[in-house]
Order: sequence, then structure tokens, then C-alpha cells
Amino acid sequence: MRALIRTMLTAMIVGVALVAATAPARAEDGYDLWLRYRPLAARDAADLARRAGSIERRGDTPTLRAAADEVRRGISGLSNRPVAQSVQGGIVLAPASDPAVAALHLPIAPLGDDGYLVRSVTLEGRSVTLITGKTDRAVLYGSFALLRHLQTGGSLDRITLTSTPRVKLRVLDHWDNLDGVVERGYAGQSLWDWWTLPDFHDPRYTDYARANASIGINGTVLNNVNAKADSLTAPYIAKAAALADVFRPYGIKVYLSARFSAPIELGGLKTADPLDPHVAAWWKAKTDEIYRAIPDFGGFLVKANSEGQPGPRDYHRSHADGANMLAAALAPHHGIVMWRAFVYAETDPEDRAKQAYTEFKPLDGTFASNVIVQVKNGAIDFQPREPFHPLFGAMPKTPLMIEFQITKEYLGFATHLAYLGPLFAETLASETKQRPGETVAEIVDGAAEGHGLTGMAGVANIGRDRDWAGSTFNQANWYAFGRMAWDPTLGAAPVAREWAAMTFAPSPQVVDPVVAMMMGSREAVVDYMTPLGLAHVMATGHHYGPSPWVADLKRPEWNPVYYHRADTAGIGFDRTVTGSNGIAQYAPALAHLLADSATTPERALLWFHHVPWTYRMRSGRTLWAEMIDRYDAGVGYVAGMRRDWDTLRPSIDAERWAKTATFLTVQEREARWWRDASLAYWMSVNGLTLPTGTRPPAHDLAWYKAQRVANAPGNPQ
Amino acid sequence: MRALIRTMLTAMIVGVALVAATAPARAEDGYDLWLRYRPLAARDAADLARRAGSIERRGDTPTLRAAADEVRRGISGLSNRPVAQSVQGGIVLAPASDPAVAALHLPIAPLGDDGYLVRSVTLEGRSVTLITGKTDRAVLYGSFALLRHLQTGGSLDRITLTSTPRVKLRVLDHWDNLDGVVERGYAGQSLWDWWTLPDFHDPRYTDYARANASIGINGTVLNNVNAKADSLTAPYIAKAAALADVFRPYGIKVYLSARFSAPIELGGLKTADPLDPHVAAWWKAKTDEIYRAIPDFGGFLVKANSEGQPGPRDYHRSHADGANMLAAALAPHHGIVMWRAFVYAETDPEDRAKQAYTEFKPLDGTFASNVIVQVKNGAIDFQPREPFHPLFGAMPKTPLMIEFQITKEYLGFATHLAYLGPLFAETLASETKQRPGETVAEIVDGAAEGHGLTGMAGVANIGRDRDWAGSTFNQANWYAFGRMAWDPTLGAAPVAREWAAMTFAPSPQVVDPVVAMMMGSREAVVDYMTPLGLAHVMATGHHYGPSPWVADLKRPEWNPVYYHRADTAGIGFDRTVTGSNGIAQYAPALAHLLADSATTPERALLWFHHVPWTYRMRSGRTLWAEMIDRYDAGVGYVAGMRRDWDTLRPSIDAERWAKTATFLTVQEREARWWRDASLAYWMSVNGLTLPTGTRPPAHDLAWYKAQRVANAPGNPQ
Repeated sequence: MRALIRTMLTAMIVGVALVAATAPARAEDGYDLWLRYRPLAARDAADLARRAGSIERRGDTPTLRAAADEVRRGISGLSNRPVAQSVQGGIVLAPASDPAVAALHLPIAPLGDDGYLVRSVTLEGRSVTLITGKTDRAVLYGSFALLRHLQTGGSLDRITLTSTPRVKLRVLDHWDNLDGVVERGYAGQSLWDWWTLPDFHDPRYTDYARANASIGINGTVLNNVNAKADSLTAPYIAKAAALADVFRPYGIKVYLSARFSAPIELGGLKTADPLDPHVAAWWKAKTDEIYRAIPDFGGFLVKANSEGQPGPRDYHRSHADGANMLAAALAPHHGIVMWRAFVYAETDPEDRAKQAYTEFKPLDGTFASNVIVQVKNGAIDFQPREPFHPLFGAMPKTPLMIEFQITKEYLGFATHLAYLGPLFAETLASETKQRPGETVAEIVDGAAEGHGLTGMAGVANIGRDRDWAGSTFNQANWYAFGRMAWDPTLGAAPVAREWAAMTFAPSPQVVDPVVAMMMGSREAVVDYMTPLGLAHVMATGHHYGPSPWVADLKRPEWNPVYYHRADTAGIGFDRTVTGSNGIAQYAPALAHLLADSATTPERALLWFHHVPWTYRMRSGRTLWAEMIDRYDAGVGYVAGMRRDWDTLRPSIDAERWAKTATFLTVQEREARWWRDASLAYWMSVNGLTLPTGTRPPAHDLAWYKAQRVANAPGNPQ
Repeated sequence: MRALIRTMLTAMIVGVALVAATAPARAEDGYDLWLRYRPLAARDAADLARRAGSIERRGDTPTLRAAADEVRRGISGLSNRPVAQSVQGGIVLAPASDPAVAALHLPIAPLGDDGYLVRSVTLEGRSVTLITGKTDRAVLYGSFALLRHLQTGGSLDRITLTSTPRVKLRVLDHWDNLDGVVERGYAGQSLWDWWTLPDFHDPRYTDYARANASIGINGTVLNNVNAKADSLTAPYIAKAAALADVFRPYGIKVYLSARFSAPIELGGLKTADPLDPHVAAWWKAKTDEIYRAIPDFGGFLVKANSEGQPGPRDYHRSHADGANMLAAALAPHHGIVMWRAFVYAETDPEDRAKQAYTEFKPLDGTFASNVIVQVKNGAIDFQPREPFHPLFGAMPKTPLMIEFQITKEYLGFATHLAYLGPLFAETLASETKQRPGETVAEIVDGAAEGHGLTGMAGVANIGRDRDWAGSTFNQANWYAFGRMAWDPTLGAAPVAREWAAMTFAPSPQVVDPVVAMMMGSREAVVDYMTPLGLAHVMATGHHYGPSPWVADLKRPEWNPVYYHRADTAGIGFDRTVTGSNGIAQYAPALAHLLADSATTPERALLWFHHVPWTYRMRSGRTLWAEMIDRYDAGVGYVAGMRRDWDTLRPSIDAERWAKTATFLTVQEREARWWRDASLAYWMSVNGLTLPTGTRPPAHDLAWYKAQRVANAPGNPQ
């Protein structure tokens, strides 16, 4: 018997070796993202094949075809057998308007346009798994939901999956320049090969659309908010139209960032004043031209009067004047304007965090109905941690969409592992205290105010690198953004579990440790870069590595010392009445808490208060000791992730394992660099020593100051 | 019987479908280049498995391991069966020093260090296929030769394959900037991810080394000849060393482009004067530092005093002074200097084509023995066609290496199909007439002069795009360069056949039409861009598209009108005694022929002569009629390629077929653009009409002049 088993095992191993040797010698390189569809265990695969061996599609639209293709691809992979389309399938894709589906009287109405229902039903006498919804798009979303269910260990047995998105615009913002450089991109060149568009449709564009549809993303802004007028010329409109054609079946609309001064640069006008009728006419004609090429064009994203971009304030007009002029051109076509509140202008250097509120709050209620104001999650700029932006809850008459940064401009680029689910969730769950229990999520999803427009935008981390996002774990941030844009209440850990199961393997032996690594990873970055509410102490320009000592840049708010204000007495930015009074931009109930360091969350302490180095923390330690503890915790967490990842080696394919292992080595080294450089600098300011047993910085401060990072990516000049 | 066959066929088809559906859903995307190793026909595969079912490696060095891995990978794929390593294999890899191999008394000595012998032998009583040579590197080259033989339809039956490279340095020049932009690169970002180096070794670096070793390339210059001093700093030396570690087992040495002014920029010296002892000492120390990190570092490539680059002439020293100073630093380590003769300086605008000869000819015999002068194939700059560079044959006391451009800066970038094998072959086969029968190839391979150093350099067309080179057919240019650097006499058509068989399929039904397309493709580009010896009529800066009318740029030789000199009387650059007398730089016997338009090859007519529009060509047509005929032939050839490619659709995998089909559509449209714009312009100059039946340009000249190409790749500012 033993011999027999040994023989069988040998045969199995040889069989595996044969497959390995003769299959195309392609490693797992991350290209497949979370849509890997690798075979289930033999028994589960057989069971799946029995129930879902054929796919039935009721209707013949591009979207239904895309959905059916995906289900076929997914079930074929998972069941490890070819799955055909058939007139009588075990899985049926059908819009709710299909007569046989309608006859079932399913609860379709509450699903809205995009919500899906996947359910075991008896259809025309056959037991089938039905994927349905009001629209073809809903069927597509349901198809991906079913595949997610199967990839994460679910079965087809008495299935009921249903979900309706809580947010209408689920949009990726690509900061991609027309020359292929991605601003703040760390995954290679722009995915859009403008040079070969509109002729060549890279198959990768379709895979991009599949990945986005699988997580519910329904819009993509193709070009950088620091926009060139070129993107509005006829050749580039044709290129955008080609992409829109590829994306359309997947329910994804194309948007463009619009340069406000385009009427001057392209139209030869003398002004871009939004109240000038020639300017309005130019935009109307340009918008009409775009809609002739892209009938379902989404609209414009605008960064105006910020960081040198042109805007209505150049003509002493308000942001609302600018937005509404564009909105008027788009309205006949049902397009929208996403107008960014990130105004980081020459004015008001007293407290950069106050600028957006100061400019936008007075405009509440003055925007056209097809304008939505896009507000960053925090009031500075995508730091490892920021308190939620005070505009949330402060403009009840204006739809606000939240803007997160998926790419990790300030969180170590692609080589540092930082799962952003907790950052998204923390912001969305923040209570505004403007109205009882009101959260940022309720502002964003419209529950608080009932606006027609709701939205969430994420600055994409996607490039042309083979694994799309520069690292396997960066893919999780794309994934989490999409899932949380669909439903801001999902929670970071469940989303991480889904992602890990699909990206690696559904077994708890893999998912548990991977999710454990992920869940603390962003806090670790906060700890080794900007503990306890610090912000913007990164190096100038590229934002990589520590430079808290920088104090010589022209504008005050370009300097890290502006943000941390460390001196012999203490550290932190006083935003109470004794300082900038930035806290007054929050609801009174919240401002009241933030006025006192004792009732301010310690994670935001130095954001709101300048406190002595000897300040007593809740732990009983002094602030200085607590800071050291945080830096050490951050470094320690990364070392732990590296060790945990080592133990996962047998469970992860070689290529993806090795890349992450290398990146964790880099991250651990650089976490130490951050800790050591920061401590060396703080000690030079506060004159304090390190507690006994604390490891001193590896070098002196001069050494850290002398470090230069050459050719950092994502920082076009 | 018929029913049985039908059943069997059905079973086979179902089997195929099953494999297709369950195999990873990866299309042929070009990543595998010519190393695809797809299964042979069943019978041939079985035969191969029988004879070569195991691989024996005698010796355990990184290079032998790489060779054995490749043979195993190749035979596994071709035979469609797992192939193991074994102590007694059907294929034996062993250096000639192996006692059992030595006992065979094979003709090893004539092979030199890199030459290989693959032969059916009886080794220790067994019939085996032996791959051997004097060095492990030779065994590696032999391994690839065997795989090429099998991929192109050869069998193991009584095999004898042997070849020795005729050229010692077979080098790719990467014009890759440290920020990832590739100058004149049309295949995406730089393959080198400097940001994650030296930590992360992208598996792609190994595949790059495999591809290069497979065609005999043994050197790679990592950075742009327009070099930044940064590349010589410690961090970048470490990054280069990491790449060198990956490449070393594949016999590929790393070289760096050196910025001549680095002693000032990095060393803080006041001068980079090559005769200043501090400068020489700085380079010596820097070179020693590099060799500590890269013990087999190849040496430096230098572009000096050309297009604004610093060089010895800034200090009134000669190119030899500069080269020899660097050579002295490299000599103790056996490194070399490749010094470019492409001097395109402010001086001597009379005839740009004469500059290199004027500066370098007098230096013949003054260069150190570890310097080789790198001369472009022609005297201008990588045009679709140029006569061979007059320096070839003119510096008998100096080793010259030829520099070709594999990337198609002036030949339509990645979207135009132009197989460069004929360009390489045409130049190499050119007779210098300096000595009886002497060809450029004999200068390059050292046969003419017997220099110790010989070399061929190709400006790489490689980037991070999935298919490496921007198109499938561009891969052929990389392939042909390597094969012809190994043996300049190979011939363009045989090399094209090899490539087509390996890249698509070995059947004549595929190879014949593909090779037929390829062989005329470069001539077609010459015809629609620069017929009959025209040159440099491309648009300014990016060099894409026609601009023969440009006349307003600051320096005379920046303007297309400088090159074509068209006027009412005629067209062409007079390089005879009545003009620049550039022909005097060639051997007297050749100059004599070129002095007369009647004895000048018509393909070079307008390169050497200004002739009347009414000049009578050998065809009996006027020059003007002949030019029109050439433009039409070029356009017609592209249209023919598009049609031929259509007929190949059933034989080529979908993804690669579609991309090439799209690109051919682009090329046909743009060939017409070239023809029409050129004709419109010439007519504005010569006042002539088009012969009856000739299609007039689609637009007027003003329209063509108004065309702008935005964001052309490969043109960093």
C-alpha cells in the first residue's frame, strides 16, 4: 500500500513536472492582477465544472459579451476545464428585462442601475445560477462578483450575491503626461501609448478595462491635472476616442483634464476669462467637438489656480465662475465638471491647510448642478496621515467628491509596502460632527445631503510596468480604492482578504499572514516617516526620503520646517487660536476637542498643536520618548514583514515572492534611514539625548543632510 | 474507417481546445523574441525527444549552467516533453578541455576562444550530440547554434555546426538616460530600472542576456553617449555592477559612456584637460573604483566634441590625447576605449559629411593600442541610405569599429517596417578601393589590417515595451545586427530566414513571404523618404515625417535644404571638385568614379551630385520622372506588404498579426504622406508638373508645411 502511494505520488510529481516543463515558460509576473483564475482543488474544480460547465448569455450587446467572456475565462481557469457558451447554460447572464427573468419577480428595483443580483434560481425549469440586474453594466458587475466569490472560496451552492454601489462616480485620475511621463508614477511609463493611438489598440487597454470593471470603477481621467492644452486638439481627441471605444463595453467613461487657458493656447483668444462670451463659445464648440468623437464623454477635471496652473482667479473670477462656464458647455451632453479644491496658491501662506476652505466654503451653493468639487482626503497633500479635510461637511449645498492618492508619492513610492485600505477607511469613517453621527463617507456617498452627484477619485498608481503598479502589493491599493469607491463602508481588512485570496491563494495559511502584514503596513510608514501628526518632512520635489531640516526654499510652505516648527521648546504646528486657528474650519463640536491637546487624538497631536518635547503622552512617556518609540515601531514592523514574507516563500510563486522580498529589504533599510535621519535632526534641535538602550543613528546629521536621491521617478521637470 | 478518422480528428480538436482553454490565457505578445521553442510537428518532436531526452553538462560554471538550462528549455519546448539533466545525456555540453572530449582530437584550435563545434560523436562509447569549444562561452554559443538549427528545421542527424566570430567586440549601445528616457528609443522606457537597482534584479535582465548571447553579442554600453557624469558616481557604479553580475554568465561585458568633463563635475577639478596630471589621476582612480565593483568591466565609450558634448578639443588637445589618457587608466585592467568619430561640431559647415575624416584621418597611428575608433556606417547620421563612411580604409594604422543604428531614428520609428539586414550588408560589402578588393567588412573584422581590436556596435532599439523593440519586425533588426556582428559576410536574406523561422514558424509557407516582405522593406523606406541619394529631409529634432522645406534653422547643416540643395535648375549636394570635394576623402579609384555622375551609382546620385531635373537616368526617364517613380514604388511596396501580411493571417498568432497589420496601415498612410509632401515641395521649387496619370498630392504644400507631430518619442529635451 505504501509502495502504491509512493508510486502514485511519483506519478503525480512527474505529471506536474511535465506540465511545468512543457507549458510556456512564463512565470507569474503580476500581469494578471487579481484576475488570475488559477485552478481550484481538484474536487472543487470538478464540482464547479458540473454546475457551471456552460455559460448562457441572453442578449447580444458588447457589455454582455464582455461579461460572458469573463465568466467563461474565469470558470475555465478555476475549473481547469474548457467552458463553452451554450443556449442552455448552468450560468445565465441576463438583464432583468429578459422575459424569463422578469417572470421570476426578483427584487430588481432596489438595485438601481448598477446593482447586481447573482442567485440560484429555477429558470424555465432548469436550476441555474442567474446573474442579473437592471442594465447590462449591472450584469457585468455581477459577473465579476460571482468570480470574486468563487476565487475567494465560495461555491455556487444556493448563492445570493447582491450589491449596489453607494457612490456614482468611481474614477481613476491618471497624472499621465502626453510625452509618456507619469507625474508621481512609479510603475513605468504611461499606459497610454499616445504615439500609436488611435490606430493601435494595445490588448493591454482591454485588460485595464477588465481590471477596473472588476472592482466597479466607471471613469478614467486620461491625462494629468497639470494639463497641456494639446490634449484638447483634434489628434488627441481622436486618441482619447479610441480608448473610449475600448473601455465602453466595460462601463468606463473617459474624462479629460482641461487646461483652463486652452482658449488662448489653442483658440487664439486674448483671454480665458470665464465670463467672456468668446471664451464660453470656444469651450462650447470644443466640447461639442469632443462629443462628436466620444458620445458618452464623461466631462472635464480641472486644476485651476493651484501650483501655477491657470484659472478663473487670473481674471478676478471665482472658482464657481470657472466651473459653471465649463458646466454650461457640458450640460447639453450630460457631461460633468470635476473641479479641484486643491488650491495651493501664492496667497495665504499663514496656514496652507486653510486655503481650500477659505476659498471654497463661501462658494457653497453657487455651483451648477453638473459640477462636483473634488476635495483631497486631507488639507495638505496626500501625507501618510492627515486629518480629514475640513471642507467635508462644510459645503452642504455642494456635491463633494473625495480624492485619494493611490500612488504613493509620500509613502515610499513603489518599493515600500503600505496598504492604503486603512487610510481610505480611516478618512471615510471620520465623523465631521457637523451633524450628529455624520461621517465623511456620508458626505461622499450623498447620504448626508442627497446630492445627485457623488464621487470618489483616486490618483492612479498604474503604469506600463508588467505588474501595472510597480509591486504586487501596490495592486492591492488599486483594488481597495475601487472596492471602497463602490462601498465606502466595506472595511480595509475584508477588502484585503479578498485581494490576498485572489492574488495569491484562498487558503487561510496564505491569506491570514498576508492580511496581517498589510493591515499594519501603512501605520508603519506613518511611524517611521511622520509619527504623531507630523507632515511633509520629505525631501524637496521628488518627496523621497527624509529632509526635515530643509528651511531655505523660497516660499515658506515649501519647507519642512514650516510644517513641523520644531524648536528647543517643542514641536508641531499650532492650529489652535494661539496659532493659525485652522481648527475653526471644523464643526464647533470637533474644533472644541481639537482646541485642547488632551482631547486631540494623539495620532494628530503635532498636526494641531505645538507641544513641548517633555509633553506627557497617554503612555506616560514624554513626547520625545514616544516619538522615538514610534520610529522604532515603524522600523520594527517592516523587519517583521520581511520575516513574515520569508515564511511565506513556499506558498508564493518564485518571481512575485522574490520581488516583494527584495523590496522589503529596501524598505527596511530605508525605514532605518528615515528613523535615524529624523532622530539626528530632532536631537540637533532639541538638544536631548536618546534614552539608554536606544540605538543611536548610524551616521551624524551632516551625513544625512548630504544624501542625495538622483533621478527619482515621477518628478517631471 | 472514415468514421474512425473523423472520431479521432474530433478527439484531437477537442484535445486542442481543452489545452487552449485551460492553458494560461497568455497571447503571443512578442516577449519570447526568436527564442520561442514552440513544439515541432509530432513526429519530429518524438524523434528529438528520443535523441535528446536528457542533457549532460560536464563542468559546473555559471556559463555552463546557463547553457545547459537553455538547451533544456529549448529541447523541452521543441520536443514538447520534459527534458532532464542527467549524468549521461543525449546532448553533452563540455569544454574541449574535458578529458573525454580531448580524447576525440576534434579540430578545436582553429575555433579560437568563442568559436564552437556541435557534432555527432561517440563519447565514452555513447552516440551523443556534443557541444564544445575552447571556453565555456564557446559552449554557450554552440548551445544557441544547436537550438537555432533545430528551430529552423534541422535535425540532430549527423550534425556538424561550427562557427567562429570574425569580430571581437559585438556591442549594443544603449542611448538610455538615467531618468529612464531612451534617446531615439521607440519601445518604451529604458530596460534598466535604475531606481530599483542594484537591489532588484528584474528577471527581464536575464532574458535580455539570453537573447543577446543567442546572437553572439558580448558587450553592452548601458548609458547614452550623451552622458551624464552621474553614471560614474558610486551609486550608479553599484547599479551597473548588479547588471554586470546578471550578464556575466552569458559572456556579456558592461561598458559605460563616459562624460569627458566628469573630473570637473564629480571631481571638483578646474579642468578636464587630458594632459593635466590631476585629470589623468582622477580618471585612473575612477577607473580603479569601477574595476573594484566590476572586475571584467569592458571600458568606456566616449562622444567628445560633438553636438555640444565636452571633449579634449575644449583644451586644444586632439581626440587621440583624450582617448589615450582614458586608455592609460583602463590598460592595467585590460579595458578599452571606444572613441566615437561622430564629430558634428560648430566648425566646418561647408560639408558636414567631411568633418569626421578631416579631424580623424590625421590622427591615424596615434591612438593607444586599447583604443578603437567608432565610425558610423555613413558620414552623415544613420540615414535610410548613405554611402559608406570615407574613414573606412583611410586609417590603416588604427582599429575602426563600425556603428550602425538598429533603432530607426530616420526610418519611421517603430511603426514602419524596415528590415535593416540589407543596409548592414550593403555597407559591409562596399569596396573601399583603397586596396584591391578590400571591403568595409574587412576593415571591420580586421582581415585588412590585422588589428588586435575589431568591433561592431549597434545603437539598440530595445526598451521596456513587452515586445522589447516596439514591433515584431524590429526584433529582426536586433537579431540581424548580432548575427552580422558575429559574421559580417552572413548575408541579409539567410539571416532573415533564420529569424522568420524562429519568430513565426519554420514552414516555407510562412518564411518565404515574410522574408520577401522584409528584403525589400528598407529600400521602400529609402524610396518614399529619400530616393536616389537624398538625405536628412526629415522634420526637425524628432526626425519623423517629411520637412524638405525647412530652411530657417540657425546652423546651415540643421536644415534639410542644406542637404538637398534643390533649386529651379536641379537637386543634389555637389561633393565633386566643383562642390565640397568630399569625394576626395575616398580612395582615388573610387573618387574617380564618383567624380562623374555617369559612373556614380544612381542610388547615391544626389548624395554626390547636383544634377538638373531633366538629367537623363539609365531608365531613360528624366530625374524628375525617376524620382516620382521611386516615391510611387516605395508607397506601392508598403501597400504590397500590407496585402501580403493579410494573406498570412491564418499562419500567425492573433496578437502579433494584428499589431503588425495595424502598423502596416500606419506605414502605408505615412508613406503616402512622405510622397505627397515631397512632391508638393519639389514642384514648388522646380515648377514642373506631374506626368499624366500620376496621382497629385492629396493636399497643397501649405497643408504639409502646417502638419505638426506632437510628443514624438525618443526626443528628450
